[in-house]
Amino acid sequence: MRENDFIAWLAEKTPPSSSVRIGIGDDMAAVELPVRAGDSLALALLKIDQSLDGVHFDLRRHTPAQAGRKAVNRCLSDCAAMACRPAAVLLAVALPHHIEEEVARELFIGGQAAATAFNCPVVGGDTAIWDQRLAISVAALGAATGPLLRRNQARPGDALCVTGNLGGSLLGRHLNFTPRIDLAQRLAAVVDIHAMMDISDSLAIDLPRLAQASGVGAVVYRQSLPIHQDARMLSAQDGRPDWFHALCDGEDYELLFALDEAHAHRILQLPGDDWITVIGQVTDGREITLRNEDGTTMPWPQAGWEYRTGA
Amino acid sequence: MRENDFIAWLAEKTPPSSSVRIGIGDDMAAVELPVRAGDSLALALLKIDQSLDGVHFDLRRHTPAQAGRKAVNRCLSDCAAMACRPAAVLLAVALPHHIEEEVARELFIGGQAAATAFNCPVVGGDTAIWDQRLAISVAALGAATGPLLRRNQARPGDALCVTGNLGGSLLGRHLNFTPRIDLAQRLAAVVDIHAMMDISDSLAIDLPRLAQASGVGAVVYRQSLPIHQDARMLSAQDGRPDWFHALCDGEDYELLFALDEAHAHRILQLPGDDWITVIGQVTDGREITLRNEDGTTMPWPQAGWEYRTGA
Repeated sequence: MRENDFIAWLAEKTPPSSSVRIGIGDDMAAVELPVRAGDSLALALLKIDQSLDGVHFDLRRHTPAQAGRKAVNRCLSDCAAMACRPAAVLLAVALPHHIEEEVARELFIGGQAAATAFNCPVVGGDTAIWDQRLAISVAALGAATGPLLRRNQARPGDALCVTGNLGGSLLGRHLNFTPRIDLAQRLAAVVDIHAMMDISDSLAIDLPRLAQASGVGAVVYRQSLPIHQDARMLSAQDGRPDWFHALCDGEDYELLFALDEAHAHRILQLPGDDWITVIGQVTDGREITLRNEDGTTMPWPQAGWEYRTGA
Repeated sequence: MRENDFIAWLAEKTPPSSSVRIGIGDDMAAVELPVRAGDSLALALLKIDQSLDGVHFDLRRHTPAQAGRKAVNRCLSDCAAMACRPAAVLLAVALPHHIEEEVARELFIGGQAAATAFNCPVVGGDTAIWDQRLAISVAALGAATGPLLRRNQARPGDALCVTGNLGGSLLGRHLNFTPRIDLAQRLAAVVDIHAMMDISDSLAIDLPRLAQASGVGAVVYRQSLPIHQDARMLSAQDGRPDWFHALCDGEDYELLFALDEAHAHRILQLPGDDWITVIGQVTDGREITLRNEDGTTMPWPQAGWEYRTGA
């Protein structure tokens, strides 16, 4: 594979975008960023994220296009978590030397399709060849046009909410989820969200992060957890409770957020196919507990993606 | 290694920067970008780049700090190529599972030191563990405050120049070079540069890229090539001419640029330790030739980094 030819092919495959001044093929890409009302500076939101063969996907079972799509969508899920619009993504791939050029092309096409679904241009890439497995890195640029939805402003008394259903994503959803970019923007437009993040590692791992960043605790109502059908299927297979899968499986790429309890009702009936569940409450102190309907509590599970990968 | 602990350590190690609204630890970082004079938009310059163990460095011989430094500097070299100031970098590492936490820390410290040398904050990172060799990805955000120095505006008759000396970087310079960010800005302030890029793959590969982007040809004066002492050392070892090393070795991370021949004299006597060499001329047509002092020409070498890595 000739790098020059590949870059030329990539540039040709990339639809023009009005905000892109310099696209693929120069030393850097140049992307226009709007300036926020009343501000004299633009605010660039940035993220980098990796998807590795054998960890986040498995090329023996998944297609290159699925791998490329997941790599981009994982990064775009962070744009959802900040309720911003993705302005550009860049894609870097370390390709095994035995890989065929067709595989690399499919991978980029999968990644590009994921970005294009949000009118987000792919503005740059990097390819390298080595004797190890496929590694994909994606960087995303987001344009901050409204308030920034961070993790650190949850307040005691806030309702804790999640989008969608949780658990069992390893049955396939982890490859073909849709980042909640549109939903995040609709939510931010309707209510004042205090803190938000996406659930990538698992609710078990990610809620403590939000709580720690905000300096608060939380109680989660076990029976309120929205259980995905995939979690029930895994539960039937391995005998673990479905709520345990919902808490610990990870790779849900749903949104976790906190807002005034009095405002929660405004978003529980969203038009369209999206739904929100109140799963608990932000508390004083730093403890995170799982509460049963009868008022008894259970220890917060110490498990999830971080542990599965040995990190 | 616990990812949370590592991120906390990283955030603590990161000096505060006035342009960073959200640093390490949230879903995305937020960086302020200045708006260009007379413009209503900011222009974000973006790049992603990989450095792989066994390709760009070798952990059996090089330290983790050297690997981290090189990974960041390779990306910053593209900021030099656009004559922009780096505004932020993000660092992603895929760590072999047997690697010790200390190695990951040294790697980040090396990368951070490289960025800090240009007052550029490290605003985000991603760590993952796998059973393959170390892969580092770096994304850079640059702020465009002046004209954009692209590759595609070289004109027939332009003088072709390079900074510094070329060749033999594999003897060690490829690990500890300094990206020509300051020099690029000084050059852009003094003269109207038509086209510029950094020499990463090698002059043999990179000049054709600049020429192709500009739709021009070039003649390079073989005896004018600035030969690095390392190229002479390699030449003494392997018997290849030193100018061949200067042309084909790659990883010089010097700048290649084109400007009006009449303006070239203004930059040949720069204050300080930097120097510029006129190595040739941009021509009509699309051919690239190497010309000897006696007027005879030689074929342009088809070699360089792209071939060495099997890409």
